[in-house]
Amino acid sequence: MKYYFGIDVGGTTVKQGLFDEDYNLLERWEIRTDKTRGGRNIIPKIAGSLEDCLERNKISKKDIIATGMGVPGPVTKDGFINKAVNLGWGRFNLKKEAKKSLGVPVFCGNDANLAGYGEFHFGSGKEFDNIIFITIGTGIGGCIINEGKILIGTDGSGAEIGHIHVKDDEEDSCGCGNKGCLEQYTSAKGIGRTARRMLATTDEPSVLRDSVINAKIIFDAIKEGDKLAIKVGEEFGRYLGCAMANLANITNPQAIILGGGVSKAGDILLTFLEEPFKKNVFHACKNVKLLCASIKNDAGIYGAAKLAGDSINNK
Amino acid sequence: MKYYFGIDVGGTTVKQGLFDEDYNLLERWEIRTDKTRGGRNIIPKIAGSLEDCLERNKISKKDIIATGMGVPGPVTKDGFINKAVNLGWGRFNLKKEAKKSLGVPVFCGNDANLAGYGEFHFGSGKEFDNIIFITIGTGIGGCIINEGKILIGTDGSGAEIGHIHVKDDEEDSCGCGNKGCLEQYTSAKGIGRTARRMLATTDEPSVLRDSVINAKIIFDAIKEGDKLAIKVGEEFGRYLGCAMANLANITNPQAIILGGGVSKAGDILLTFLEEPFKKNVFHACKNVKLLCASIKNDAGIYGAAKLAGDSINNK
Repeated sequence: MKYYFGIDVGGTTVKQGLFDEDYNLLERWEIRTDKTRGGRNIIPKIAGSLEDCLERNKISKKDIIATGMGVPGPVTKDGFINKAVNLGWGRFNLKKEAKKSLGVPVFCGNDANLAGYGEFHFGSGKEFDNIIFITIGTGIGGCIINEGKILIGTDGSGAEIGHIHVKDDEEDSCGCGNKGCLEQYTSAKGIGRTARRMLATTDEPSVLRDSVINAKIIFDAIKEGDKLAIKVGEEFGRYLGCAMANLANITNPQAIILGGGVSKAGDILLTFLEEPFKKNVFHACKNVKLLCASIKNDAGIYGAAKLAGDSINNK
Repeated sequence: MKYYFGIDVGGTTVKQGLFDEDYNLLERWEIRTDKTRGGRNIIPKIAGSLEDCLERNKISKKDIIATGMGVPGPVTKDGFINKAVNLGWGRFNLKKEAKKSLGVPVFCGNDANLAGYGEFHFGSGKEFDNIIFITIGTGIGGCIINEGKILIGTDGSGAEIGHIHVKDDEEDSCGCGNKGCLEQYTSAKGIGRTARRMLATTDEPSVLRDSVINAKIIFDAIKEGDKLAIKVGEEFGRYLGCAMANLANITNPQAIILGGGVSKAGDILLTFLEEPFKKNVFHACKNVKLLCASIKNDAGIYGAAKLAGDSINNK
């Protein structure tokens, strides 16, 4: 029997999966992301953890076909990473470094791209050839898949949709330094910011007044019919729905799939997005399906394993 | 010697080119687009015109490797067209129909996509792998090329960038039925509209007051330093530059190339685009080159011939 590893390196934890040749997940575990020494421990710690897994499962390293690895930063087609600020990484050949440390072929990609690739092959995207995947978490990430291939882009920065400019008169800066980025209104952080702003400028009663504001609390309040929370949802929908329409006009996909932490709110998300999407999309793209992701947290390790398999088989 | 035909079907004229195997343009001619009978005469008239060309040049039809054809509407990967309103066409298998009529293999694409493909291979794009091509004419069209391939999209509507939503409080409708489309502010028609609106709302002196307003007159006035015309250019630049930044964030190209009638104004166009582009683009995409097209009117026939060659050779 032959195997793949799928790895999803995040700022806090590294998710790891052992997959068989048909991409069935056999074991799933996590380790803490060791960010000491400018992130230089991350790859060696992953290597050690994979060795433990082999031992635990009595698998020989020569039966690992390849390993896929998603990381929070731009990764070029050739496996170069150009800064992953959350890990402390600068620019280096991640593919080469990881192969040296792990002792098996490694194929790398951006984490949002690999989560999208996982959803595309094994989740809500599996019936389609062309999708856009949007992850709504602390920030907004994206993945464009066209004719089955990830649009990686020149520097590995394809689908940086969190930094689409959507508002001209914004006074606060986005983390990227620009003003008026999509992420400022539609990420978990952005949704919280909208709620706090609305609470401060009206006297409207709301269950949110006595809460520690976060996206989950807000969507729970929406489900209970809280009017102010619904207005927060509508503003979220206006920005994201319009951006999704523009993305549809640009890449003409069959479906747009929403993943990331905020998507756990479920289909209620779509109720805020459908109207602004339909209002702004070009008529030829009106039939795009809007869906929630189905694999959720593990999409990244599935996508990483599949990338490894497709790359080694030159697909 | 073997040959390709490259054909660019427009609403007024059909541009045609005879190319050798290395895509050198040997002869170029035009015929009027015959839009009678719901556009049913267009393909037969093209067929007749190509026969004349063969006779003129004493070329046997068996030496035509293939023909490429660009048309003003969405064309799927399989050669289906889904409405070309300017030609009166509905939905049919254009590739099959044209092959039957012309007697040689035909490969079809959207006209903006094929103009972009021409610029990519033979014009300002030839050093790059990933570009965005924007045609600024009566409307706004686009072409996204990623790793050398046109992003066609599910229904052949990839890169419908003229209908990106860019303004919320627009009262006039775009030709597509939506309100606030990029095309309404940045096409030749849109630039003229901006100028007329500015002339009506101020008393500012301007050479435009005594002119029949069109994009050429406006850019000529800009070159002469006309202040009101410069404001028109700035508004054009604000909308298009920001949209270009968003497109760069989405597909991460090496260059964005401007073609179409309005691009004949030359590099002065870029002076209005550079600042809003830089202001809104994500830092990882800041190095994107902004360029004017170099092939101009013939990009479409070059791109059509190249599509024919690449398709027949399965590239």
